[in-house]
Amino acid sequence: MDLSLQILLTIAMLILAAKLAGALAGRVGLPVVLGELLAGALLGPSALNIWSLRWFAASPAAGSMSAEAVFKILAQLGVVLLMFVAGLETNADLLRKAVAPAFWAALGGVALPLAGASLVARGAGLSWPEAIFLGTVLTATSVAISAQSLMNLQQMGSKPGAILLAAAVIDDILGLIVLSLVIAIVPHGGQSVALPWRSLGIALARMGLCLATIFWLGPPLTRWVIQRSQRLRGLHTELAAALFVAFLLAFHAQWTGGMAAITGSYLAGLFVAGTPAHGRVTREVYPMIHSFFGPLFFVSVGLSVDVWQLRGHFGFFALLLLVAILGKVIGCGLGARFNGITARESIVVGVGMIPRGEVGLIAASIGLAAGLLARETYAQVVVVVLAADLVTPGLLRFAFPKDTLARAVASSGGMDHIA
Amino acid sequence: MDLSLQILLTIAMLILAAKLAGALAGRVGLPVVLGELLAGALLGPSALNIWSLRWFAASPAAGSMSAEAVFKILAQLGVVLLMFVAGLETNADLLRKAVAPAFWAALGGVALPLAGASLVARGAGLSWPEAIFLGTVLTATSVAISAQSLMNLQQMGSKPGAILLAAAVIDDILGLIVLSLVIAIVPHGGQSVALPWRSLGIALARMGLCLATIFWLGPPLTRWVIQRSQRLRGLHTELAAALFVAFLLAFHAQWTGGMAAITGSYLAGLFVAGTPAHGRVTREVYPMIHSFFGPLFFVSVGLSVDVWQLRGHFGFFALLLLVAILGKVIGCGLGARFNGITARESIVVGVGMIPRGEVGLIAASIGLAAGLLARETYAQVVVVVLAADLVTPGLLRFAFPKDTLARAVASSGGMDHIA
Repeated sequence: MDLSLQILLTIAMLILAAKLAGALAGRVGLPVVLGELLAGALLGPSALNIWSLRWFAASPAAGSMSAEAVFKILAQLGVVLLMFVAGLETNADLLRKAVAPAFWAALGGVALPLAGASLVARGAGLSWPEAIFLGTVLTATSVAISAQSLMNLQQMGSKPGAILLAAAVIDDILGLIVLSLVIAIVPHGGQSVALPWRSLGIALARMGLCLATIFWLGPPLTRWVIQRSQRLRGLHTELAAALFVAFLLAFHAQWTGGMAAITGSYLAGLFVAGTPAHGRVTREVYPMIHSFFGPLFFVSVGLSVDVWQLRGHFGFFALLLLVAILGKVIGCGLGARFNGITARESIVVGVGMIPRGEVGLIAASIGLAAGLLARETYAQVVVVVLAADLVTPGLLRFAFPKDTLARAVASSGGMDHIA
Repeated sequence: MDLSLQILLTIAMLILAAKLAGALAGRVGLPVVLGELLAGALLGPSALNIWSLRWFAASPAAGSMSAEAVFKILAQLGVVLLMFVAGLETNADLLRKAVAPAFWAALGGVALPLAGASLVARGAGLSWPEAIFLGTVLTATSVAISAQSLMNLQQMGSKPGAILLAAAVIDDILGLIVLSLVIAIVPHGGQSVALPWRSLGIALARMGLCLATIFWLGPPLTRWVIQRSQRLRGLHTELAAALFVAFLLAFHAQWTGGMAAITGSYLAGLFVAGTPAHGRVTREVYPMIHSFFGPLFFVSVGLSVDVWQLRGHFGFFALLLLVAILGKVIGCGLGARFNGITARESIVVGVGMIPRGEVGLIAASIGLAAGLLARETYAQVVVVVLAADLVTPGLLRFAFPKDTLARAVASSGGMDHIA
């Protein structure tokens, strides 16, 4: 079948599956995002395995381009936009006050999973280099799923929300430092790694340069672009300008800084939130996220889970997942708790930091390519990363005190947004 | 460079280029859409040729997937959504009354370009089969560019607007009949075509079946889906339901009916317009079209123009373009004029039918593959198709009587929407 036909039908089906599963989850008291993730898992290789249907076989005319590859790209655009919205909804004042606890939370959340997973892997008989690398893969949080859960719970503007988002940005930086360090130091694949410290230095310099330019030039640039756009002829030029900034900073973060693209689009959202266009941009970007890019992203995450990779290694997987979860909850939680945050809020921060994402998956594939991870270990750690995503929405919901949620509902005037 | 990086930067750049060029065009009194098309033409192979930059070389990791291919897909999604919005904005009562003039307009607009272009091509020394096929390529209107121009001029709900859209749907059907007939009858590539009438019969039966199910099941299905979606938990479920219908009918039109996908999404928009969700869906889908998918689509159309294909054949090209333009203006115009439409409105309909699009390009590539078009002729007819798109927004604007536009502006309370 023609690629364009595959895409049209798949978009229709994924939107339908996401919204139905989300609504169903909401009705039985589970988070909507969890429903969307599970819908994807059901369609993926764990159960129905839609991409392997003959129907989706790549047509010769499309070259090697498959519908699966196209949806990976749409999902990527979705997560960039999702984090832009998360930035829009972040309370900047709370964020500024959150830097100190966020830093310690991020540090704890990197140290504990790294140490824990390395020890578990070593205990399971892996070599030290492989064990340490596996630990590294499990350090990087990807906060998009928590961000969506917070939006649904209307807690994006709360104190734990702000700490969580700040910690996620810092975690992105720490995770990359650890990854660069490990790749630089750990002997792998028989290659002699020349000048490890120099390449680490370069990586740090790139990150520093990138963040300096973003924090220094980002806000005035954003303000200027939005202001000029308001005087342009044409429809929705303001939103177009905001999206321009989001994609530009996403590119800048990944290209100049070697960081995750979503760190850039998150900061872009934060800067746009500081302009007078904040309200309108938020109102206008919301429908596109929640009806199109968001569902496609969350279903795609679920689609990549393959539980069959666990056959014969379920014990190891379960232990690794436990470490991945507890490492963040305890590591981040303690980091926050020792910086003036209440116990309950610290737990929320810790739980919110559980999800891993593209950074972990990229690190794992680097390890596979460099011979630092065996193919079998690679497949399992990918499932751990995705399983951590699946458990988060539920845990996050129960981590919030009931009265906080009730207050948010009351102020929004209905039950519709609780999900 | 990594594909994901290419995509992030290109989206940022294309949005910026589209909005700046559109605003510039608006400021000097030209249509905004024309500016976006020209921005694309400037970035494409005619001038800057961005896809050939070393920067955009496909990375080995992405297989044969290039940034160019990804943007073709995003543009495809854009035009599907654009025609959905055109359906939302169509006045259904006017449309019903417009069926008779629209039918004759469509018929005239198929007959004249077919005859004219065939004669021009024959006069230029092409064989009869090649000449007739070239005429066929120039029959199919693609109304997305006119639709966007009408939206900008706030004339989508006008009488000529309704005739234009109805004629475009009918034209899609007629164009496919002609294409099937020509492929079935004209001898080509030394192949013996078995049972030409039977394959034509099958094509017509598919179309009939598809349209019957769309017109019979489409409205109640749409109403039911939208109604159910309003009771679902989750955010923007109504818009998601509307988009589901749009992509589903687009798929159905192309797969079952062998028609253009945009015919399906246009009808979906029409059906959604008949539900109580009409206002909200329109309001919510607008920003996503005008800030993201629309600019990407219009720039992409411009990006595929390659004026260098005309070297040495400019006279032939100019004549063909003239026939492509006058064939629609006169053919459609007369068809409308003889069915009770004023002269001025008939011209608007004729001009609005000028743009060709994906159906023409697909027909051309079928001809190339079947040996019915020489590679040289193919390259030129592609430029004719795209050039017809470039001239439409300007002509359409001047075709409307000034006082009609002034009234639309007055009722919208400002100059901002005129573009």
